[in-house]
Amino acid sequence: MSMEMISQLAVTGDTKLALLVFDGLGGLDSEGRGTALEAARVPNLDALAKESVTGFHTPIAQGVTPGSGPAHLSLFGYDPIKHTIGRGVLEALGVDFPLRKGDVPARINFCTIGPDGLITDRRAGRIPSEEGARVVAKLAAAIKLPGVECEIRHVKEYRAAVVLRGEGLGGEIADTDPQVTGKPPLEPAPTRDTPQNRKTAALLAEFAQQAKAILADEPKANMLTLRGIDLFEPLPSFQDLYHLNPTSIAVYPMYKGVSRLAGMTVQEHGQETPADEFAILEKVWNNFDYFFIHIKKTDSYGEDGNFEGRVHVLEEVDALIPRLRALNPDVIAVTGDHSTPSPLKSHSWHPVPLMIYSKHCRADRVEGFNETALLAGGLGTIHGTSILPLMLANGKRLAKFGA
Amino acid sequence: MSMEMISQLAVTGDTKLALLVFDGLGGLDSEGRGTALEAARVPNLDALAKESVTGFHTPIAQGVTPGSGPAHLSLFGYDPIKHTIGRGVLEALGVDFPLRKGDVPARINFCTIGPDGLITDRRAGRIPSEEGARVVAKLAAAIKLPGVECEIRHVKEYRAAVVLRGEGLGGEIADTDPQVTGKPPLEPAPTRDTPQNRKTAALLAEFAQQAKAILADEPKANMLTLRGIDLFEPLPSFQDLYHLNPTSIAVYPMYKGVSRLAGMTVQEHGQETPADEFAILEKVWNNFDYFFIHIKKTDSYGEDGNFEGRVHVLEEVDALIPRLRALNPDVIAVTGDHSTPSPLKSHSWHPVPLMIYSKHCRADRVEGFNETALLAGGLGTIHGTSILPLMLANGKRLAKFGA
Repeated sequence: MSMEMISQLAVTGDTKLALLVFDGLGGLDSEGRGTALEAARVPNLDALAKESVTGFHTPIAQGVTPGSGPAHLSLFGYDPIKHTIGRGVLEALGVDFPLRKGDVPARINFCTIGPDGLITDRRAGRIPSEEGARVVAKLAAAIKLPGVECEIRHVKEYRAAVVLRGEGLGGEIADTDPQVTGKPPLEPAPTRDTPQNRKTAALLAEFAQQAKAILADEPKANMLTLRGIDLFEPLPSFQDLYHLNPTSIAVYPMYKGVSRLAGMTVQEHGQETPADEFAILEKVWNNFDYFFIHIKKTDSYGEDGNFEGRVHVLEEVDALIPRLRALNPDVIAVTGDHSTPSPLKSHSWHPVPLMIYSKHCRADRVEGFNETALLAGGLGTIHGTSILPLMLANGKRLAKFGA
Repeated sequence: MSMEMISQLAVTGDTKLALLVFDGLGGLDSEGRGTALEAARVPNLDALAKESVTGFHTPIAQGVTPGSGPAHLSLFGYDPIKHTIGRGVLEALGVDFPLRKGDVPARINFCTIGPDGLITDRRAGRIPSEEGARVVAKLAAAIKLPGVECEIRHVKEYRAAVVLRGEGLGGEIADTDPQVTGKPPLEPAPTRDTPQNRKTAALLAEFAQQAKAILADEPKANMLTLRGIDLFEPLPSFQDLYHLNPTSIAVYPMYKGVSRLAGMTVQEHGQETPADEFAILEKVWNNFDYFFIHIKKTDSYGEDGNFEGRVHVLEEVDALIPRLRALNPDVIAVTGDHSTPSPLKSHSWHPVPLMIYSKHCRADRVEGFNETALLAGGLGTIHGTSILPLMLANGKRLAKFGA
């Protein structure tokens, strides 16, 4: 059932729903020790599983390995295939840029060009982040576009993001990266001929021309290319869709950004550790009714192939679960956005462990929160976008469909 | 796969298929006694489960609590989101009105207006059913619309249904209930401007005007509002879709009505108890090849929070199962239209127990028909609309797809 139809069934209520996401939860056996969830001692998660309906979810589709953006959209109930997030938008979200409807974000790659204007290095010799930040500051101080605001933020190394803000802009403009060295950066060209796209292409051409002049004396980052140019369309918010008042407790900018897309109030307290995040949760508990708590390190360690690291984070967060339960949420969902098995050192397509607790969840007979135990779960394997409707239903927030 | 595609695969045959629906089957633990199905002694259902492939179904979607109308459409193989049934249609079906294509049914709410024409009570003081029936008779005897038939039937208390039948009618007309007191009933207004909608709105305005005159001396029900105005579009029938000759054995008008929508011959024998229903089943066994048997009380007791009542009905029907099996159906499906857990006293979103028996069903290892045992079922959790195709397949009524 579409998000729009679920939205029509949504009713107000005083229940509180918590979604705890271990990024990259779900693994593979590592040298006979089982998965990280199987190897970890997680008595509090196991106890919660006993009171929950359990199983797995596929964030996008069987066999499809999700990126973090679409995986979270799925957890938040947005069809991740219909609501794609462009690279430019993701980059801007990733540096905490508060995008507004009609903004045109793009990703900047600094590059090196020769005296003939042809690209000699598409990544400007992978300059260190300090140098990248300095170049961005220089650029931001000097650039001036007619009739629009233009904000530039450094991301990392040779990467940055630029956002144009103004009336009547378009986002259907091709990348200016020629993808090979020995060619000049391409002119920004509309992929569809509209006044908005023409206007924006002209502004970006002006942007590139000014950048070339401003950066002319740089040894490496003396030019730039633009990618993932996109007109920002906000998503319908949790407030509008579901009468929820949601908040997001996350450490990394990217996850804060995706939360903001869904209309969540993002907690900004310099929190770092999972214990810090749970402290924020306790502090803001009375102010919201939907809580997204994001644990990043399960994914980071998975990407590094660090099995022990994953086990450790799981145990660390497991010890915090009693603090969540003490708040007495009506609904608790625990899952990941995708699997990141440490033997693969990458995101993967494997179904993601999931449990949904409420007084009315119809608990199954599963007694542990791990890939093997969950095979007997009452949910089976559901689509990621079903998690939010199930949370709403368990929180008595959905009316009956039809008479 | 869509109903239309399943229809293309359907072939004739001499097999007989029986669908036994316990309304509201599927529950939650009640004070440690388990669900009603777990607490009930149902040896015959358990024995059937041993020979069946089992699991659960979601009638509409994960997390979505179904109304009875869409839930039954799903059991009958119709996409319940595509084929919505309007409130006016439901109300007319509920009083056994044999709707035809092009009819315009609407729900009537009697109300009280003051001398100034403003509504003082939107439900006419919730008049008792006897008074409602009397007012309907008075209205039906006097009302006369030009060029169309107009039939009015009492439903309950202050509620009734009206059906206009004639050429060139439309159903896109807004409710006339202003939703608050202190305002007059609204004029029937097309929500889309077409000659059909204009014509029907004019007829309904005339209807309301006459009703006002006819009811002027009533102490309470001296006016009416119209809701759920809808142009009736029949569903494609089981005969046309699947070469089935179906019959319906149900006690409550609403379920007879939904059966009629699917082209079923509705058995009208004043049957009341499940034993009565099984007696009819035996009597008509030779005349049909698809049998829908509907047990209402599991739902009614669930709505009342009467756990013992649910247990009792399950045991009562279990004792009748040998009579069904003695008829030697080729396929037996046993399920509910939705869950109605007695602890919730309402329909719910929980997956509904399901078993499908045939000689060729590939029975799983499940040995009992209840929510816990079925977790190990071979079907997992399927969509409600998959039940009919599986019944057809098990009855050798579906040809191969592709070469």
